[in-house]
Amino acid sequence: MTTFNFQYDLVAKDHNARAGVFHTPHGDLLTPIFAPVGTQATVKAVTPAQLKEIGVTLVLANTYHLYLRPGADLVAEMGGLHHFMRWDSPILTDSGGFQVFSLAGMRKIDEDGVTFKSHIDGSIHRFTPEKAIQVQEQLGADIIMAFDECAPPYDRAYNQQAVARTHRWAERCLAAQTRPDQALFGIVQGGIFPDLREQSARFISSLGFPGHAIGGLSVGETKEEMHRTLELLNQILPEDKPRYLMGVGSPEDLINGIRRGVDIFDCVLPTRLARHQAAMTRQGRLNLMNAAHARDPRPIDEKCHCYTCTHFSRAYLRHLIVAKEMLAATLISIHNIATLVYLVQDARRAILEGTFEQFAEEFLAHYTLPEKAQA
Amino acid sequence: MTTFNFQYDLVAKDHNARAGVFHTPHGDLLTPIFAPVGTQATVKAVTPAQLKEIGVTLVLANTYHLYLRPGADLVAEMGGLHHFMRWDSPILTDSGGFQVFSLAGMRKIDEDGVTFKSHIDGSIHRFTPEKAIQVQEQLGADIIMAFDECAPPYDRAYNQQAVARTHRWAERCLAAQTRPDQALFGIVQGGIFPDLREQSARFISSLGFPGHAIGGLSVGETKEEMHRTLELLNQILPEDKPRYLMGVGSPEDLINGIRRGVDIFDCVLPTRLARHQAAMTRQGRLNLMNAAHARDPRPIDEKCHCYTCTHFSRAYLRHLIVAKEMLAATLISIHNIATLVYLVQDARRAILEGTFEQFAEEFLAHYTLPEKAQA
Repeated sequence: MTTFNFQYDLVAKDHNARAGVFHTPHGDLLTPIFAPVGTQATVKAVTPAQLKEIGVTLVLANTYHLYLRPGADLVAEMGGLHHFMRWDSPILTDSGGFQVFSLAGMRKIDEDGVTFKSHIDGSIHRFTPEKAIQVQEQLGADIIMAFDECAPPYDRAYNQQAVARTHRWAERCLAAQTRPDQALFGIVQGGIFPDLREQSARFISSLGFPGHAIGGLSVGETKEEMHRTLELLNQILPEDKPRYLMGVGSPEDLINGIRRGVDIFDCVLPTRLARHQAAMTRQGRLNLMNAAHARDPRPIDEKCHCYTCTHFSRAYLRHLIVAKEMLAATLISIHNIATLVYLVQDARRAILEGTFEQFAEEFLAHYTLPEKAQA
Repeated sequence: MTTFNFQYDLVAKDHNARAGVFHTPHGDLLTPIFAPVGTQATVKAVTPAQLKEIGVTLVLANTYHLYLRPGADLVAEMGGLHHFMRWDSPILTDSGGFQVFSLAGMRKIDEDGVTFKSHIDGSIHRFTPEKAIQVQEQLGADIIMAFDECAPPYDRAYNQQAVARTHRWAERCLAAQTRPDQALFGIVQGGIFPDLREQSARFISSLGFPGHAIGGLSVGETKEEMHRTLELLNQILPEDKPRYLMGVGSPEDLINGIRRGVDIFDCVLPTRLARHQAAMTRQGRLNLMNAAHARDPRPIDEKCHCYTCTHFSRAYLRHLIVAKEMLAATLISIHNIATLVYLVQDARRAILEGTFEQFAEEFLAHYTLPEKAQA
């Protein structure tokens, strides 16, 4: 296997917002970029062809889930994740850490790794930094993640300990990596604590990773704390490497993240909301189950050029929801993913044109936060 | 509304198999043809774009279901079924009769019509021949069906009565029709009784319908009885009108039907089987849940050129099934519909080339009936 040069070209900057190109073995990623999540090697209810039609270039898959089912060895035997799920553009896998740590009462952490119970059949498994890399090498994504420990955001003592352990594990992950065609990203932790975040960002970026992930955000802290943390990290993380804000993906979080120097985002939100009848738009969320839509011939968003909005009315989508038809999840997922992909594409264009601040202000002025929206 | 000339051109005959063209307001149907079923104005789990890609030209929708939900008036207000479900090719609706008669214990039949309870909310409704036509005119399909009474196949007394009533209702349907852009098909009944079938076929074809449907088959009779009935009707029904065998759609039934002069088929089988992990092929059915497929890199059918078979392995499809991912139903539905559409297309080609008998023999020799297949 030849060594791939995972170069990030910073093409333009507008205040702190960045437009770049990240080169990967399965093609260039134009950043900022939003990646929909295909937890079990499928973006739920959407085919790869439909993702391509939207313009998706990066998809995330979850190591924990694929390790348990169908098994990383099976995926490797089938030619790796790209071939298995038939996604020939770049893929990013997480390390499994976050999912394993979320198994409250079903996992035990020690310095060497984590022992956990499968949520599927209760069987016992163990992940170490080395194992997380080995599994991700079997899966074969273009971008893989170091095995880290994510602590609750306000627990200082735990965060102090988790940062130190995350750093030791980061070094073990680097040492364990054998494939030269995968970009291993280091992960910055530290909760809401600026000194811990600074310490983590300085240490992680000293290790020479081709990219950096920001973990432990969007896990219970306030938006202001998230923004402050991003602003701090933006000053420390090297400019010539991509920054990936893990698990973040509401429209307002994307814009606020881009504004603070983030390049890569992923989130289950567009597909999860779609399965709960909620459509995402640049103005806010729409509950399509609402009776007001029953005889509405308009699409979800008249300005959206996705397959769903150029073909189907709110009345039809509501009918599919009420009739419990699977097509509802497919069509709303397509629209929701498209909303985020187009939003980030427009943000990139604005950065290139030097008008991103105005673009962001206008977007935020017209956007109704879900918690402030009328029922 | 201008009167549409619903002409059927018989292009070629090969023994009793027919290749033709049926002209409709939304395009020509090349017969023989298989129509997937979109009960609730959606072919379950498949988008109209995916149906087009397969080559589907005719879709069936169920009047009973759409009348109850979302309501025929709503569909009409949204521009009719074509616009509502975004299917710009021909649509066929049934009369609702079969579904209503299937509501055992929840319906009462009299000479004027049927009173029934909604399976959704228990509300009371009434269909008469006039009402069935009115609802179908609101839905706006290209091909609509007369309101008929379908009796159990072996009950002679009931069939005698049902045939007579079906004939009286056929005349009432013709009288009730107001739209000149819908082809109203008369329906032949008579169970397994040759004299009743002959009587029904003669009477129904005397009324001048632009096409004829064969009801009351594939409802419990043997294959031999179905074939005998089709052979009899083939001699009586006029050659210059299309014949539609209602609700029939296994691969072997399609070939056996075409062989006996049938032009149009519909069935829920491909999509229903797909939701139960069964793939249809020209050799028989495949249970994709079977552990034998877990590490099988082959597609369902190596000779099939559908989206599913040109992209995905059995191993991946099985993974989607085991992981309870919706994409399984979508991908297997695409393949199953494609199997029937391609089979009927190949049958048509063979008829045009005068090789259909050989084609049918070869197909049947290699096909394993589901009831004879190994578990």
